Amino acid sequence: MNNVVIVGVGLIGGSFGLAIRKAGFAGIITGVSSPAATAEALANGVIDRDASLEEAIPEADLIYLAQPIGRILHSLALVDKYAKPGALITDAGSTKQAIVTEAARSVHNARFLGGHPLAGKETRGAAAADADLFRGRPYVLTPADPAKVDPEFLALLHGIGARPLMLGAAEHDRLVAASSHLPQLASTALASTLGGEFPEAAQVAGPGLLDATRLALSSYDLWRDIVSTNTVAIEEALSAYIQKLEYIRENLRTRQLRDEFSQGAEFARRLRD
Amino acid sequence: MNNVVIVGVGLIGGSFGLAIRKAGFAGIITGVSSPAATAEALANGVIDRDASLEEAIPEADLIYLAQPIGRILHSLALVDKYAKPGALITDAGSTKQAIVTEAARSVHNARFLGGHPLAGKETRGAAAADADLFRGRPYVLTPADPAKVDPEFLALLHGIGARPLMLGAAEHDRLVAASSHLPQLASTALASTLGGEFPEAAQVAGPGLLDATRLALSSYDLWRDIVSTNTVAIEEALSAYIQKLEYIRENLRTRQLRDEFSQGAEFARRLRD
Repeated sequence: MNNVVIVGVGLIGGSFGLAIRKAGFAGIITGVSSPAATAEALANGVIDRDASLEEAIPEADLIYLAQPIGRILHSLALVDKYAKPGALITDAGSTKQAIVTEAARSVHNARFLGGHPLAGKETRGAAAADADLFRGRPYVLTPADPAKVDPEFLALLHGIGARPLMLGAAEHDRLVAASSHLPQLASTALASTLGGEFPEAAQVAGPGLLDATRLALSSYDLWRDIVSTNTVAIEEALSAYIQKLEYIRENLRTRQLRDEFSQGAEFARRLRD
Repeated sequence: MNNVVIVGVGLIGGSFGLAIRKAGFAGIITGVSSPAATAEALANGVIDRDASLEEAIPEADLIYLAQPIGRILHSLALVDKYAKPGALITDAGSTKQAIVTEAARSVHNARFLGGHPLAGKETRGAAAADADLFRGRPYVLTPADPAKVDPEFLALLHGIGARPLMLGAAEHDRLVAASSHLPQLASTALASTLGGEFPEAAQVAGPGLLDATRLALSSYDLWRDIVSTNTVAIEEALSAYIQKLEYIRENLRTRQLRDEFSQGAEFARRLRD
Protein backbone atom coordinates (compact mmCIF):
# COMPACT_ATOMS: atom_id res chain seq x y z
CA MET A 1 0.00 0.00 0.00
CA ASN A 2 1.70 3.16 -1.19
CA ASN A 3 -1.23 5.39 -1.90
CA VAL A 4 -3.87 6.07 0.76
CA VAL A 5 -6.94 8.24 0.18
CA ILE A 6 -8.87 9.43 3.20
CA VAL A 7 -12.41 10.51 2.36
CA GLY A 8 -13.64 12.82 5.14
CA VAL A 9 -10.74 14.38 7.05
CA GLY A 10 -12.39 15.16 10.38
CA LEU A 11 -11.24 13.82 13.75
CA ILE A 12 -11.19 10.12 12.77
CA GLY A 13 -9.93 10.51 9.20
CA GLY A 14 -7.33 13.04 10.28
CA SER A 15 -6.18 10.90 13.19
CA PHE A 16 -5.84 7.90 10.84
CA GLY A 17 -3.57 9.97 8.60
CA LEU A 18 -1.37 11.11 11.48
CA ALA A 19 -1.33 7.62 13.00
CA ILE A 20 -0.17 5.74 9.90
CA ARG A 21 2.47 8.39 9.22
CA LYS A 22 3.76 8.03 12.79
CA ALA A 23 3.75 4.25 12.33
CA GLY A 24 6.11 4.62 9.37
CA PHE A 25 3.84 4.74 6.32
CA ALA A 26 6.05 6.26 3.60
CA GLY A 27 3.56 6.66 0.74
CA ILE A 28 1.23 9.48 -0.25
CA ILE A 29 -1.81 10.42 1.82
CA THR A 30 -4.49 12.29 -0.11
CA GLY A 31 -7.51 13.92 1.52
CA VAL A 32 -10.91 14.19 -0.15
CA SER A 33 -13.24 16.42 1.81
CA SER A 34 -14.87 19.86 1.84
CA PRO A 35 -12.50 22.78 1.04
CA ALA A 36 -12.63 23.92 4.69
CA ALA A 37 -11.83 20.44 6.00
CA THR A 38 -8.96 19.78 3.59
CA ALA A 39 -7.49 23.22 4.32
CA GLU A 40 -7.53 22.44 8.04
CA ALA A 41 -6.08 18.97 7.40
CA LEU A 42 -3.26 20.38 5.22
CA ALA A 43 -2.48 23.01 7.86
CA ASN A 44 -2.22 20.29 10.51
CA GLY A 45 -0.02 18.01 8.41
CA VAL A 46 -2.68 15.34 8.38
CA ILE A 47 -2.61 14.84 4.58
CA ASP A 48 0.03 15.45 1.91
CA ARG A 49 -2.36 16.90 -0.65
CA ASP A 50 -6.02 17.29 -1.39
CA ALA A 51 -7.84 16.23 -4.52
CA SER A 52 -11.31 15.54 -5.88
CA LEU A 53 -12.76 12.05 -5.53
CA GLU A 54 -12.49 11.50 -9.28
CA GLU A 55 -8.80 12.44 -9.31
CA ALA A 56 -7.75 10.71 -6.13
CA ILE A 57 -9.49 7.33 -6.14
CA PRO A 58 -8.04 5.80 -9.37
CA GLU A 59 -4.53 5.88 -7.84
CA ALA A 60 -5.47 4.60 -4.40
CA ASP A 61 -4.43 1.26 -2.89
CA LEU A 62 -6.42 1.96 0.28
CA ILE A 63 -9.53 4.15 0.49
CA TYR A 64 -10.52 5.09 4.04
CA LEU A 65 -14.09 6.37 4.34
CA ALA A 66 -14.34 8.47 7.51
CA GLN A 67 -17.57 10.27 6.73
CA PRO A 68 -20.92 10.21 8.52
CA ILE A 69 -22.80 6.93 7.91
CA GLY A 70 -25.26 8.45 5.43
CA ARG A 71 -22.38 9.81 3.34
CA ILE A 72 -20.52 6.50 3.45
CA LEU A 73 -23.63 4.73 2.11
CA HIS A 74 -23.72 7.26 -0.71
CA SER A 75 -19.96 7.11 -1.42
CA LEU A 76 -19.56 3.35 -1.83
CA ALA A 77 -20.85 2.95 -5.41
CA LEU A 78 -19.09 6.12 -6.56
CA VAL A 79 -15.74 5.18 -5.02
CA ASP A 80 -16.01 1.67 -6.47
CA LYS A 81 -16.65 3.14 -9.90
CA TYR A 82 -13.30 5.01 -9.88
CA ALA A 83 -11.26 2.49 -7.88
CA LYS A 84 -8.62 0.33 -9.48
CA PRO A 85 -9.37 -3.41 -9.40
CA GLY A 86 -8.46 -4.95 -6.09
CA ALA A 87 -8.09 -1.65 -4.19
CA LEU A 88 -9.25 -1.94 -0.58
CA ILE A 89 -12.13 0.23 0.60
CA THR A 90 -12.70 0.37 4.33
CA ASP A 91 -14.81 2.65 6.50
CA ALA A 92 -15.05 3.97 10.04
CA GLY A 93 -18.84 4.15 10.41
CA SER A 94 -20.37 3.54 13.84
CA THR A 95 -22.97 1.06 12.56
CA LYS A 96 -22.05 -1.79 10.24
CA GLN A 97 -25.02 -3.82 8.94
CA ALA A 98 -26.40 -1.11 6.62
CA ILE A 99 -22.93 -0.30 5.27
CA VAL A 100 -21.91 -3.93 4.74
CA THR A 101 -25.21 -4.61 2.95
CA GLU A 102 -24.79 -1.59 0.68
CA ALA A 103 -21.16 -2.55 -0.02
CA ALA A 104 -22.20 -6.08 -1.04
CA ARG A 105 -24.65 -4.51 -3.49
CA SER A 106 -22.39 -1.83 -4.95
CA VAL A 107 -18.69 -2.69 -4.50
CA HIS A 108 -17.52 -5.03 -7.31
CA ASN A 109 -14.40 -3.52 -8.72
CA ALA A 110 -12.61 -2.94 -5.40
CA ARG A 111 -12.73 -5.04 -2.21
CA PHE A 112 -14.63 -3.85 0.89
CA LEU A 113 -13.92 -4.34 4.59
CA GLY A 114 -16.19 -2.80 7.22
CA GLY A 115 -14.50 -1.19 10.19
CA HIS A 116 -15.34 0.72 13.37
CA PRO A 117 -12.60 2.19 15.55
CA LEU A 118 -13.86 2.51 19.13
CA ALA A 119 -12.02 5.76 19.61
CA GLY A 120 -12.93 9.40 19.79
CA LYS A 121 -12.92 12.53 21.85
CA GLU A 122 -15.21 15.45 22.50
CA THR A 123 -13.60 17.84 19.99
CA ARG A 124 -14.33 17.36 16.30
CA GLY A 125 -12.37 18.20 13.17
CA ALA A 126 -8.85 17.65 11.79
CA ALA A 127 -7.45 20.31 14.15
CA ALA A 128 -8.13 17.86 17.00
CA ALA A 129 -6.60 14.91 15.11
CA ASP A 130 -4.29 12.78 17.24
CA ALA A 131 -1.75 10.19 16.05
CA ASP A 132 -2.43 8.17 19.23
CA LEU A 133 -6.23 8.22 19.06
CA PHE A 134 -6.46 4.50 18.20
CA ARG A 135 -3.73 3.34 20.60
CA GLY A 136 -4.98 0.60 22.93
CA ARG A 137 -8.55 0.94 21.63
CA PRO A 138 -10.61 -1.85 20.04
CA TYR A 139 -10.94 -1.57 16.25
CA VAL A 140 -13.85 -3.70 15.04
CA LEU A 141 -13.59 -5.31 11.60
CA THR A 142 -16.60 -7.07 10.03
CA PRO A 143 -15.21 -9.24 7.22
CA ALA A 144 -17.41 -11.85 5.55
CA ASP A 145 -14.54 -14.27 6.21
CA PRO A 146 -12.19 -13.35 9.10
CA ALA A 147 -9.44 -15.53 7.57
CA LYS A 148 -9.36 -13.32 4.47
CA VAL A 149 -8.74 -9.90 6.01
CA ASP A 150 -6.07 -8.03 4.01
CA PRO A 151 -2.84 -8.73 5.96
CA GLU A 152 -1.29 -5.40 4.97
CA PHE A 153 -4.25 -3.44 6.37
CA LEU A 154 -4.24 -5.58 9.52
CA ALA A 155 -0.53 -4.82 9.96
CA LEU A 156 -1.32 -1.11 9.56
CA LEU A 157 -3.91 -1.31 12.36
CA HIS A 158 -1.43 -3.08 14.64
CA GLY A 159 1.12 -0.42 13.69
CA ILE A 160 -1.12 2.41 14.92
CA GLY A 161 -1.63 0.56 18.22
CA ALA A 162 -5.25 -0.45 17.65
CA ARG A 163 -6.61 -3.80 18.84
CA PRO A 164 -8.42 -5.40 15.87
CA LEU A 165 -11.57 -7.33 16.87
CA MET A 166 -13.50 -9.46 14.33
CA LEU A 167 -17.27 -9.41 14.67
CA GLY A 168 -20.23 -10.09 12.40
CA ALA A 169 -21.89 -6.85 11.28
CA ALA A 170 -25.19 -7.73 13.01
CA GLU A 171 -23.39 -8.77 16.20
CA HIS A 172 -21.40 -5.50 16.15
CA ASP A 173 -24.60 -3.50 15.81
CA ARG A 174 -26.30 -5.40 18.65
CA LEU A 175 -23.31 -4.83 20.96
CA VAL A 176 -22.84 -1.12 20.21
CA ALA A 177 -26.60 -0.62 20.62
CA ALA A 178 -26.00 -1.72 24.24
CA SER A 179 -22.54 -0.24 24.89
CA SER A 180 -22.91 3.09 23.08
CA HIS A 181 -26.36 3.90 21.66
CA LEU A 182 -28.31 2.94 24.80
CA PRO A 183 -26.05 4.99 27.16
CA GLN A 184 -26.44 7.98 24.81
CA LEU A 185 -30.23 7.77 24.77
CA ALA A 186 -30.36 7.04 28.53
CA SER A 187 -28.36 10.21 29.19
CA THR A 188 -30.37 12.30 26.73
CA ALA A 189 -33.63 11.00 28.26
CA LEU A 190 -32.39 11.76 31.79
CA ALA A 191 -31.36 15.33 30.94
CA SER A 192 -34.54 15.90 28.93
CA THR A 193 -36.73 14.57 31.78
CA LEU A 194 -35.03 16.86 34.28
CA GLY A 195 -35.08 19.85 31.92
CA GLY A 196 -38.76 19.35 31.17
CA GLU A 197 -40.21 18.25 34.51
CA PHE A 198 -37.69 19.08 37.23
CA PRO A 199 -35.76 22.16 36.05
CA GLU A 200 -35.26 23.39 39.66
CA ALA A 201 -33.29 20.17 40.32
CA ALA A 202 -30.29 21.99 38.81
CA GLN A 203 -30.06 23.90 42.12
CA VAL A 204 -29.17 20.74 44.02
CA ALA A 205 -27.05 19.01 41.37
CA GLY A 206 -23.92 17.17 42.44
CA PRO A 207 -21.00 15.64 40.52
CA GLY A 208 -22.96 12.43 39.87
CA LEU A 209 -25.49 14.31 37.75
CA LEU A 210 -22.64 15.83 35.72
CA ASP A 211 -21.33 12.33 34.92
CA ALA A 212 -24.81 11.08 34.10
CA THR A 213 -25.56 13.98 31.70
CA ARG A 214 -22.17 14.25 29.93
CA LEU A 215 -23.33 12.21 26.91
CA ALA A 216 -26.48 14.37 26.70
CA LEU A 217 -24.24 17.22 25.48
CA SER A 218 -23.85 15.34 22.16
CA SER A 219 -25.40 16.81 19.08
CA TYR A 220 -28.31 15.09 17.31
CA ASP A 221 -26.45 15.58 14.01
CA LEU A 222 -23.94 12.92 15.06
CA TRP A 223 -26.71 10.51 16.06
CA ARG A 224 -29.37 10.76 13.37
CA ASP A 225 -27.63 8.30 11.01
CA ILE A 226 -26.68 5.94 13.84
CA VAL A 227 -30.25 5.73 15.10
CA SER A 228 -31.75 5.36 11.62
CA THR A 229 -29.35 2.56 10.61
CA ASN A 230 -29.59 0.59 13.88
CA THR A 231 -33.21 1.12 14.86
CA VAL A 232 -34.18 -2.47 15.67
CA ALA A 233 -31.17 -3.20 17.88
CA ILE A 234 -31.64 0.14 19.68
CA GLU A 235 -35.34 -0.60 20.25
CA GLU A 236 -34.37 -3.94 21.79
CA ALA A 237 -31.73 -2.41 24.06
CA LEU A 238 -34.14 0.36 25.12
CA SER A 239 -36.85 -2.20 25.87
CA ALA A 240 -34.49 -4.24 28.06
CA TYR A 241 -33.50 -1.04 29.90
CA ILE A 242 -37.11 0.10 30.39
CA GLN A 243 -38.01 -3.35 31.72
CA LYS A 244 -35.11 -3.15 34.20
CA LEU A 245 -36.21 0.30 35.39
CA GLU A 246 -39.78 -0.93 35.88
CA TYR A 247 -38.47 -3.88 37.90
CA ILE A 248 -36.39 -1.52 40.05
CA ARG A 249 -39.40 0.76 40.55
CA GLU A 250 -41.46 -2.22 41.74
CA ASN A 251 -38.68 -3.37 44.07
CA LEU A 252 -37.44 -0.18 45.73
CA ARG A 253 -38.10 -1.59 49.20
CA THR A 254 -37.13 -5.23 48.61
CA ARG A 255 -33.91 -7.21 48.67
CA GLN A 256 -34.05 -7.38 44.86
CA LEU A 257 -32.72 -3.81 44.74
CA ARG A 258 -29.55 -4.97 46.50
CA ASP A 259 -29.07 -7.59 43.76
CA GLU A 260 -29.45 -4.95 41.04
CA PHE A 261 -26.82 -2.75 42.74
CA SER A 262 -24.49 -5.78 42.97
CA GLN A 263 -24.93 -6.80 39.33
CA GLY A 264 -24.52 -3.19 38.16
CA ALA A 265 -21.43 -2.54 40.28
CA GLU A 266 -19.85 -5.79 39.11
CA PHE A 267 -20.28 -4.85 35.43
CA ALA A 268 -19.10 -1.27 36.06
CA ARG A 269 -15.96 -2.59 37.80
CA ARG A 270 -15.32 -5.08 34.99
CA LEU A 271 -15.36 -2.21 32.45
CA ARG A 272 -12.57 -0.56 34.46
CA ASP A 273 -10.32 -3.61 34.81
CA MET B 1 -21.42 28.29 70.02
CA ASN B 2 -18.34 27.10 71.91
CA ASN B 3 -18.96 23.40 72.09
CA VAL B 4 -19.66 21.35 68.97
CA VAL B 5 -20.38 17.63 69.03
CA ILE B 6 -20.17 15.72 65.76
CA VAL B 7 -22.03 12.42 65.84
CA GLY B 8 -20.60 10.19 63.08
CA VAL B 9 -17.10 11.28 62.06
CA GLY B 10 -16.93 9.91 58.54
CA LEU B 11 -16.25 11.99 55.42
CA ILE B 12 -19.01 14.56 56.02
CA GLY B 13 -18.74 14.82 59.81
CA GLY B 14 -14.95 14.91 59.63
CA SER B 15 -14.97 17.53 56.89
CA PHE B 16 -17.37 19.68 58.93
CA GLY B 17 -14.91 19.56 61.86
CA LEU B 18 -11.94 20.53 59.69
CA ALA B 19 -13.96 23.21 57.88
CA ILE B 20 -15.21 25.06 60.97
CA ARG B 21 -11.73 24.90 62.51
CA LYS B 22 -10.25 26.40 59.32
CA ALA B 23 -12.98 29.08 59.40
CA GLY B 24 -11.83 30.16 62.86
CA PHE B 25 -14.02 28.18 65.28
CA ALA B 26 -12.09 28.34 68.58
CA GLY B 27 -14.18 26.08 70.81
CA ILE B 28 -14.05 22.34 71.50
CA ILE B 29 -14.99 19.77 68.85
CA THR B 30 -15.98 16.40 70.27
CA GLY B 31 -16.53 13.30 68.13
CA VAL B 32 -19.05 10.57 68.98
CA SER B 33 -18.61 7.55 66.75
CA SER B 34 -17.34 3.97 66.67
CA PRO B 35 -13.90 3.47 68.29
CA ALA B 36 -12.32 2.91 64.84
CA ALA B 37 -13.88 6.08 63.40
CA THR B 38 -12.95 8.31 66.36
CA ALA B 39 -9.38 6.92 66.34
CA GLU B 40 -9.07 7.83 62.65
CA ALA B 41 -10.65 11.24 63.29
CA LEU B 42 -8.25 11.99 66.19
CA ALA B 43 -5.28 10.88 64.07
CA ASN B 44 -6.37 13.28 61.30
CA GLY B 45 -6.94 16.22 63.66
CA VAL B 46 -10.63 16.30 62.78
CA ILE B 47 -11.82 16.34 66.41
CA ASP B 48 -10.22 17.45 69.67
CA ARG B 49 -11.46 14.50 71.71
CA ASP B 50 -13.86 11.61 71.60
CA ALA B 51 -16.57 10.81 74.12
CA SER B 52 -19.72 8.77 74.55
CA LEU B 53 -23.04 10.30 73.52
CA GLU B 54 -24.13 10.50 77.18
CA GLU B 55 -20.96 12.39 78.15
CA ALA B 56 -20.71 14.66 75.15
CA ILE B 57 -24.25 15.86 74.41
CA PRO B 58 -25.06 17.65 77.73
CA GLU B 59 -22.26 20.18 77.11
CA ALA B 60 -23.00 20.77 73.42
CA ASP B 61 -24.23 24.03 71.90
CA LEU B 62 -24.38 22.47 68.42
CA ILE B 63 -24.93 18.78 67.70
CA TYR B 64 -24.09 17.79 64.13
CA LEU B 65 -25.57 14.41 63.13
CA ALA B 66 -23.55 13.06 60.20
CA GLN B 67 -24.70 9.46 60.37
CA PRO B 68 -26.61 7.35 57.83
CA ILE B 69 -30.30 8.32 57.67
CA GLY B 70 -31.50 5.29 59.64
CA ARG B 71 -29.07 6.11 62.45
CA ILE B 72 -30.08 9.79 62.47
CA LEU B 73 -33.75 8.75 62.86
CA HIS B 74 -32.71 6.62 65.81
CA SER B 75 -30.40 9.26 67.39
CA LEU B 76 -32.85 12.18 67.49
CA ALA B 77 -34.84 11.23 70.62
CA LEU B 78 -31.72 10.06 72.45
CA VAL B 79 -29.73 13.20 71.65
CA ASP B 80 -32.69 15.38 72.66
CA LYS B 81 -32.92 13.54 75.99
CA TYR B 82 -29.33 14.53 76.91
CA ALA B 83 -29.21 17.94 75.22
CA LYS B 84 -29.29 21.15 77.20
CA PRO B 85 -32.37 23.33 76.58
CA GLY B 86 -32.03 25.40 73.43
CA ALA B 87 -29.06 23.46 72.00
CA LEU B 88 -29.21 23.23 68.22
CA ILE B 89 -29.38 19.79 66.60
CA THR B 90 -28.80 19.67 62.87
CA ASP B 91 -28.14 16.78 60.50
CA ALA B 92 -26.56 16.02 57.13
CA GLY B 93 -28.92 13.31 55.93
CA SER B 94 -29.60 13.01 52.17
CA THR B 95 -33.38 12.87 52.56
CA LYS B 96 -35.26 15.30 54.75
CA GLN B 97 -38.99 14.57 55.11
CA ALA B 98 -38.62 11.46 57.29
CA ILE B 99 -36.00 13.15 59.48
CA VAL B 100 -37.95 16.40 59.88
CA THR B 101 -41.09 14.43 60.77
CA GLU B 102 -39.24 12.34 63.36
CA ALA B 103 -37.59 15.47 64.81
CA ALA B 104 -41.00 17.16 65.19
CA ARG B 105 -42.14 14.11 67.13
CA SER B 106 -39.08 13.62 69.34
CA VAL B 107 -37.07 16.86 69.70
CA HIS B 108 -38.56 19.04 72.45
CA ASN B 109 -35.71 19.97 74.71
CA ALA B 110 -33.32 21.12 71.97
CA ARG B 111 -34.12 22.87 68.66
CA PHE B 112 -33.86 21.00 65.34
CA LEU B 113 -32.82 22.22 61.89
CA GLY B 114 -32.68 19.79 58.95
CA GLY B 115 -29.71 20.11 56.61
CA HIS B 116 -28.21 18.47 53.53
CA PRO B 117 -24.82 19.54 52.24
CA LEU B 118 -24.60 18.78 48.49
CA ALA B 119 -20.98 17.77 48.79
CA GLY B 120 -19.03 14.56 48.76
CA LYS B 121 -16.38 12.53 47.08
CA GLU B 122 -15.77 8.92 46.20
CA THR B 123 -13.61 8.09 49.22
CA ARG B 124 -15.30 7.55 52.58
CA GLY B 125 -14.12 8.02 56.17
CA ALA B 126 -12.43 10.72 58.25
CA ALA B 127 -9.07 10.00 56.56
CA ALA B 128 -10.56 11.58 53.40
CA ALA B 129 -12.02 14.55 55.30
CA ASP B 130 -11.42 17.89 53.57
CA ALA B 131 -11.74 21.38 55.07
CA ASP B 132 -12.86 22.67 51.66
CA LEU B 133 -15.45 19.98 50.93
CA PHE B 134 -18.39 22.40 51.34
CA ARG B 135 -16.76 25.35 49.56
CA GLY B 136 -18.96 26.67 46.73
CA ARG B 137 -21.47 23.83 47.19
CA PRO B 138 -25.18 24.24 47.96
CA TYR B 139 -26.13 23.45 51.57
CA VAL B 140 -29.87 22.83 51.85
CA LEU B 141 -31.62 23.83 55.08
CA THR B 142 -35.24 22.84 55.72
CA PRO B 143 -36.46 25.08 58.57
CA ALA B 144 -40.16 25.26 59.41
CA ASP B 145 -39.72 29.05 59.23
CA PRO B 146 -36.80 30.30 57.07
CA ALA B 147 -36.80 33.60 59.00
CA LYS B 148 -35.95 31.76 62.22
CA VAL B 149 -32.79 29.91 61.21
CA ASP B 150 -30.17 30.23 63.95
CA PRO B 151 -27.97 33.14 62.76
CA GLU B 152 -24.84 31.77 64.41
CA PHE B 153 -25.17 28.44 62.56
CA LEU B 154 -25.90 30.27 59.30
CA ALA B 155 -22.74 32.35 59.81
CA LEU B 156 -20.81 29.11 60.38
CA LEU B 157 -22.05 27.74 57.04
CA HIS B 158 -21.05 30.95 55.27
CA GLY B 159 -17.69 30.71 57.04
CA ILE B 160 -16.97 27.28 55.56
CA GLY B 161 -17.83 28.56 52.08
CA ALA B 162 -21.13 26.72 51.68
CA ARG B 163 -24.10 28.31 49.88
CA PRO B 164 -27.16 27.89 52.16
CA LEU B 165 -30.39 27.18 50.27
CA MET B 166 -33.76 27.13 52.06
CA LEU B 167 -36.23 24.51 50.86
CA GLY B 168 -39.26 22.73 52.28
CA ALA B 169 -38.42 19.15 53.29
CA ALA B 170 -40.87 17.66 50.77
CA GLU B 171 -39.61 19.96 48.00
CA HIS B 172 -36.01 19.00 48.83
CA ASP B 173 -36.88 15.32 48.61
CA ARG B 174 -38.69 15.77 45.27
CA LEU B 175 -35.72 17.65 43.79
CA VAL B 176 -33.00 15.25 44.98
CA ALA B 177 -35.13 12.33 43.75
CA ALA B 178 -34.64 13.88 40.29
CA SER B 179 -31.09 15.27 40.60
CA SER B 180 -29.47 12.47 42.58
CA HIS B 181 -31.60 9.37 43.23
CA LEU B 182 -32.87 9.01 39.64
CA PRO B 183 -29.36 9.33 38.09
CA GLN B 184 -28.10 6.69 40.56
CA LEU B 185 -30.85 4.22 39.69
CA ALA B 186 -30.57 5.01 35.95
CA SER B 187 -26.85 4.19 36.08
CA THR B 188 -27.37 1.06 38.19
CA ALA B 189 -30.13 -0.10 35.82
CA LEU B 190 -27.92 0.54 32.77
CA ALA B 191 -24.97 -1.39 34.17
CA SER B 192 -27.22 -4.19 35.44
CA THR B 193 -28.97 -4.48 32.03
CA LEU B 194 -25.63 -4.71 30.24
CA GLY B 195 -24.15 -7.10 32.80
CA GLY B 196 -27.20 -9.35 32.63
CA GLU B 197 -28.16 -9.26 28.96
CA PHE B 198 -25.23 -7.84 26.97
CA PRO B 199 -22.07 -8.86 28.88
CA GLU B 200 -20.02 -9.03 25.63
CA ALA B 201 -20.74 -5.31 25.12
CA ALA B 202 -17.78 -4.68 27.46
CA GLN B 203 -15.52 -5.56 24.49
CA VAL B 204 -16.66 -2.51 22.56
CA ALA B 205 -17.02 -0.06 25.47
CA GLY B 206 -15.90 3.53 24.98
CA PRO B 207 -15.40 6.45 27.38
CA GLY B 208 -19.12 7.35 27.26
CA LEU B 209 -20.05 4.04 28.88
CA LEU B 210 -17.53 4.72 31.66
CA ASP B 211 -19.23 8.06 32.40
CA ALA B 212 -22.67 6.47 32.26
CA THR B 213 -21.75 3.65 34.68
CA ARG B 214 -19.66 5.63 37.21
CA LEU B 215 -22.57 5.98 39.67
CA ALA B 216 -23.29 2.25 39.32
CA LEU B 217 -20.07 1.63 41.30
CA SER B 218 -21.87 2.94 44.43
CA SER B 219 -22.64 0.53 47.20
CA TYR B 220 -26.22 -0.42 48.06
CA ASP B 221 -25.39 0.20 51.74
CA LEU B 222 -25.25 3.94 51.03
CA TRP B 223 -28.57 3.86 49.19
CA ARG B 224 -30.86 1.58 51.19
CA ASP B 225 -31.92 4.30 53.66
CA ILE B 226 -32.25 6.94 50.92
CA VAL B 227 -34.55 4.75 48.83
CA SER B 228 -36.63 3.63 51.80
CA THR B 229 -37.16 7.20 53.09
CA ASN B 230 -37.91 8.75 49.69
CA THR B 231 -39.80 5.97 47.94
CA VAL B 232 -42.75 7.94 46.59
CA ALA B 233 -40.69 10.77 45.08
CA ILE B 234 -38.28 8.23 43.55
CA GLU B 235 -41.18 6.25 42.06
CA GLU B 236 -42.47 9.46 40.47
CA ALA B 237 -39.08 10.41 39.03
CA LEU B 238 -38.55 6.86 37.71
CA SER B 239 -42.00 6.91 36.11
CA ALA B 240 -41.28 10.21 34.34
CA TYR B 241 -37.97 8.78 33.10
CA ILE B 242 -39.52 5.50 31.90
CA GLN B 243 -42.21 7.48 30.06
CA LYS B 244 -39.52 9.59 28.36
CA LEU B 245 -37.60 6.47 27.30
CA GLU B 246 -40.78 4.94 25.86
CA TYR B 247 -41.45 8.15 23.94
CA ILE B 248 -37.90 8.10 22.57
CA ARG B 249 -38.26 4.43 21.59
CA GLU B 250 -41.44 5.26 19.67
CA ASN B 251 -39.80 8.24 17.97
CA LEU B 252 -36.36 6.95 16.94
CA ARG B 253 -36.98 7.83 13.32
CA THR B 254 -38.94 11.05 13.74
CA ARG B 255 -38.10 14.71 14.26
CA GLN B 256 -39.20 14.38 17.90
CA LEU B 257 -35.86 12.72 18.67
CA ARG B 258 -34.09 15.91 17.60
CA ASP B 259 -36.19 17.86 20.12
CA GLU B 260 -35.27 15.44 22.90
CA PHE B 261 -31.57 15.86 22.08
CA SER B 262 -32.00 19.65 22.13
CA GLN B 263 -33.85 19.72 25.46
CA GLY B 264 -31.37 17.29 27.02
CA ALA B 265 -28.29 19.18 25.77
CA GLU B 266 -29.73 22.48 26.96
CA PHE B 267 -30.24 21.17 30.50
CA ALA B 268 -26.80 19.47 30.51
CA ARG B 269 -25.16 22.75 29.45
CA ARG B 270 -27.10 24.70 32.08
CA LEU B 271 -25.75 22.38 34.79
CA ARG B 272 -22.23 23.30 33.67
CA ASP B 273 -22.70 27.07 33.57
